[in-house]
Amino acid sequence: MTDVIQVQKKVLSENARIANELREKFARTCVTVVNLISAPGSGKTRLLERTLELLPDGVRAAVLTGDIQTEKDAERLARFGYPVRQITTGGTCHLDATMIERHLIDWDLDDLDILFIENVGNLVCPSSYDLGEEAKIVLLSVTEGEEKPLKYPSIFFKAKLIVLTKTDLLPYVPFDLELAKLNARSINADAEIIETSCQTGDGLTQWMSWLEARVLRNAAVRS
Amino acid sequence: MTDVIQVQKKVLSENARIANELREKFARTCVTVVNLISAPGSGKTRLLERTLELLPDGVRAAVLTGDIQTEKDAERLARFGYPVRQITTGGTCHLDATMIERHLIDWDLDDLDILFIENVGNLVCPSSYDLGEEAKIVLLSVTEGEEKPLKYPSIFFKAKLIVLTKTDLLPYVPFDLELAKLNARSINADAEIIETSCQTGDGLTQWMSWLEARVLRNAAVRS
Repeated sequence: MTDVIQVQKKVLSENARIANELREKFARTCVTVVNLISAPGSGKTRLLERTLELLPDGVRAAVLTGDIQTEKDAERLARFGYPVRQITTGGTCHLDATMIERHLIDWDLDDLDILFIENVGNLVCPSSYDLGEEAKIVLLSVTEGEEKPLKYPSIFFKAKLIVLTKTDLLPYVPFDLELAKLNARSINADAEIIETSCQTGDGLTQWMSWLEARVLRNAAVRS
Repeated sequence: MTDVIQVQKKVLSENARIANELREKFARTCVTVVNLISAPGSGKTRLLERTLELLPDGVRAAVLTGDIQTEKDAERLARFGYPVRQITTGGTCHLDATMIERHLIDWDLDDLDILFIENVGNLVCPSSYDLGEEAKIVLLSVTEGEEKPLKYPSIFFKAKLIVLTKTDLLPYVPFDLELAKLNARSINADAEIIETSCQTGDGLTQWMSWLEARVLRNAAVRS
């Protein structure tokens, strides 16, 4: 097992090196970069669709969306007129910093205010790979059960924001919202928690405000 | 990257070796072994709860349940009086054959008719690790979206059975059941598909029959 652990260490330290370069580049160009992580089907693409729809005029956004095999998410997101690029990992269960670097190569970051990275649907592995982002955001759908923060603590610990999704389904599922928040807080007392439904629009104003505050702060640095 | 790929190959071939030993042992003792795989929150533990509840008297069952951090699933499943053992992977995103071997060490397989293995909630990595099981079963909740078989083809390709879960939520989610089945069939034309709701009990008779047919077939070999 020693060689496995050593190779893993090497992979992660090489990833950290590239992620740090990306982070410096994002800081220099004052781009807000967020990394959306969740289980498959928690609603990352749906939240991004609503976000691109609601973005105020003049905000220059782009999306990198990761998937193992298909380009379906990029197709869904391209309708909104912002640059969208699919990262197809071909079996790899997470995005890494090299993939981000490679897919940004011909985009001018000076032309961007915010870059959304949609990770591969997986609550485990993506949490280990720094992508140079300003914030990891974890999504948890109310259909998944309130114990998930305890069962997947690493990503809940590292997230700056926890977005509870599909709250319109609360009347139909045995999900204890307060217990879910308590569980999340027990892993990460500092993360903000926003309850959302892309179906009804509930909570989306709060979500957009959270994003806009970051974009404005970074824009203030630029000017 | 060459050393990464080589170590991965070595890990998988060592896993295959142990999985084959397990498979021989399961065949010799005529135990039906199924490996349940899904995204976090698709309802693996809930389906196992209902299954243990519905198991006919005299069927000797046991459960190995994998989780990254907590023992919550084992606690939930232990109530039914069957032997249950938690495998806590401590960060690893899947179960492997060594973990199964280690956790079976003091169980007499001759005393078992069926062994349920509940994998870590992850649609990606568990599909690469053979556990010596007779069948991989993939669960897909109707809240997750009908494109999941296309986005996570490896596990849908390898599964002998696809269990659609939470069908009671169909009236409240934008899930196209026929399209989901079409997508699943396009990846795996042979897998059986069973639609279930643990809330209403729909489809559970079909699920139990699928299991019982395998148990009976293996028992026939024994006698």
